[in-house]
Amino acid sequence: MSTELNLPAVTVLGLGPMGRSLAHAFLAAGARTTVWNRTPGKDRELTERGAAGAATAEEAVSASELTVVCVVNYDASDAILRADDVTRALKGRTVVNLTADTPGRARDTAQWAAAHGIDYLDGAIMTPAPSIGTPEAVFLHSGPSGLYARHLPVLELLGGTHTHLGEETGRAATFDIALLDIFWTAMAGYAHAVAIARAEGVTARELAPLAQGIAAILPPLFEGFAADADSGTYSGEINPITSAVSTMAHVVEVSESHGIDAGVMRAVEGMARRVIGLGHGTDGFIRVAEMLGRH
Amino acid sequence: MSTELNLPAVTVLGLGPMGRSLAHAFLAAGARTTVWNRTPGKDRELTERGAAGAATAEEAVSASELTVVCVVNYDASDAILRADDVTRALKGRTVVNLTADTPGRARDTAQWAAAHGIDYLDGAIMTPAPSIGTPEAVFLHSGPSGLYARHLPVLELLGGTHTHLGEETGRAATFDIALLDIFWTAMAGYAHAVAIARAEGVTARELAPLAQGIAAILPPLFEGFAADADSGTYSGEINPITSAVSTMAHVVEVSESHGIDAGVMRAVEGMARRVIGLGHGTDGFIRVAEMLGRH
Repeated sequence: MSTELNLPAVTVLGLGPMGRSLAHAFLAAGARTTVWNRTPGKDRELTERGAAGAATAEEAVSASELTVVCVVNYDASDAILRADDVTRALKGRTVVNLTADTPGRARDTAQWAAAHGIDYLDGAIMTPAPSIGTPEAVFLHSGPSGLYARHLPVLELLGGTHTHLGEETGRAATFDIALLDIFWTAMAGYAHAVAIARAEGVTARELAPLAQGIAAILPPLFEGFAADADSGTYSGEINPITSAVSTMAHVVEVSESHGIDAGVMRAVEGMARRVIGLGHGTDGFIRVAEMLGRH
Repeated sequence: MSTELNLPAVTVLGLGPMGRSLAHAFLAAGARTTVWNRTPGKDRELTERGAAGAATAEEAVSASELTVVCVVNYDASDAILRADDVTRALKGRTVVNLTADTPGRARDTAQWAAAHGIDYLDGAIMTPAPSIGTPEAVFLHSGPSGLYARHLPVLELLGGTHTHLGEETGRAATFDIALLDIFWTAMAGYAHAVAIARAEGVTARELAPLAQGIAAILPPLFEGFAADADSGTYSGEINPITSAVSTMAHVVEVSESHGIDAGVMRAVEGMARRVIGLGHGTDGFIRVAEMLGRH
């Protein structure tokens, strides 16, 4: 454990479940941690463990060279950071915004920060609050490399892995959005499969081992399809999209025969049929990515 | 290599890519293999390697105790098997139908078989044609256990893993449909994520390593959610569905801001919002499976 003298000071704005986990991790690592939340009373457990509670956001950001923000979205972080007194207090300091929102909002905030002499890094947290402070935590960052390098030792007090995705501010949010797109779409497929299985008399636990097997084949397919997508080859030799659509139609048919909504698979099948309609039926499914990006 | 005398005879009906792979695997394992396809000429490479080509389906099924069928769907397998002469020839023999279709079609075919004195196993092949004959192949089976045990030594000539899911005929098709529901929905999420990433200046190859990381966390989540689903607990303590929907809305927003269709995620978000509307916002996302199954 380092001594207080050479440990950095850090301010955490936002004490929802994720903000509290961030503050607890900083405290546990011995950092001088100042905390603030718009709604008072959320800092009690933290101040009892040694955090400094701030009466205002201005007071909070003035206490540390580095402020980490994690609130519900950028409307909320704007409401805090862009208040005149807070903006003035942040001049010459650094903000790491770990709030989840769109790449456009991240870029807009970086522009605002630059216009006010505030150093700015954007970031995203890919794992749930209980992961913070453990090796399981996954943080993505984007923004100036030098600034990232300077603050990485403090950020690493949060545990887990930290990846700098580049200088362009929007990259962390872009990866966040893309990865959550994959995650929630896959989870929707799983929830729907469980509903179908149950309607046919198969329990979720019976399905689970084979569902896990299906999930396990995704990573190598993602890698191969990424190469296809970037090179524009879209090979469908092994599994042409014309084969995939008959499977998709069966899923829709069984689902709806049980009165189970099949809106997700209908949308997936629709994309596949449009690719075929565009003359690419012998291509692989990843051709869908190219079609979606056409304008 | 066994001698011809103690090796089984097997007939393969349907010589599309999968049927040809099945027949090749049987031949490579030394089985006496008879092949037939509705459209002539597909058997040439197989007969050159030692398969017996049959002029008619009746002749084909008469050559072996066991007939394996793999055609495009059950309309196609019905058209072959339910022709009077073929049905008569199959009496006292066994059909293993590896054609992909719905559980209902599988059960209907089992009833037809029982009514005509034909032993019947239903099955599904979960891996593409090139996997057949290799350890990567995955076969699911359902139907009478004794019948499965009797023919398993022949089926195992196809390589890979064979799993008997139970006596109820529809189970192989149910698992097939449920697993392909997960697979194609997840693939749609991936293709969509690639389209978003590209629109934001991130290549598919840049996204791939983190996309693989997201896929890797699915198997343990599937296991936990299966327990939740079967027990009806739907814990949302770590990740309540109210948090998930704001992420989903961000995906839709970014997608549509680039003119990229977000129909799949809109359908996913709609399911999540309906769960919240039903009063279950603090539950985990897998509550969707319960909602989908309500009538």
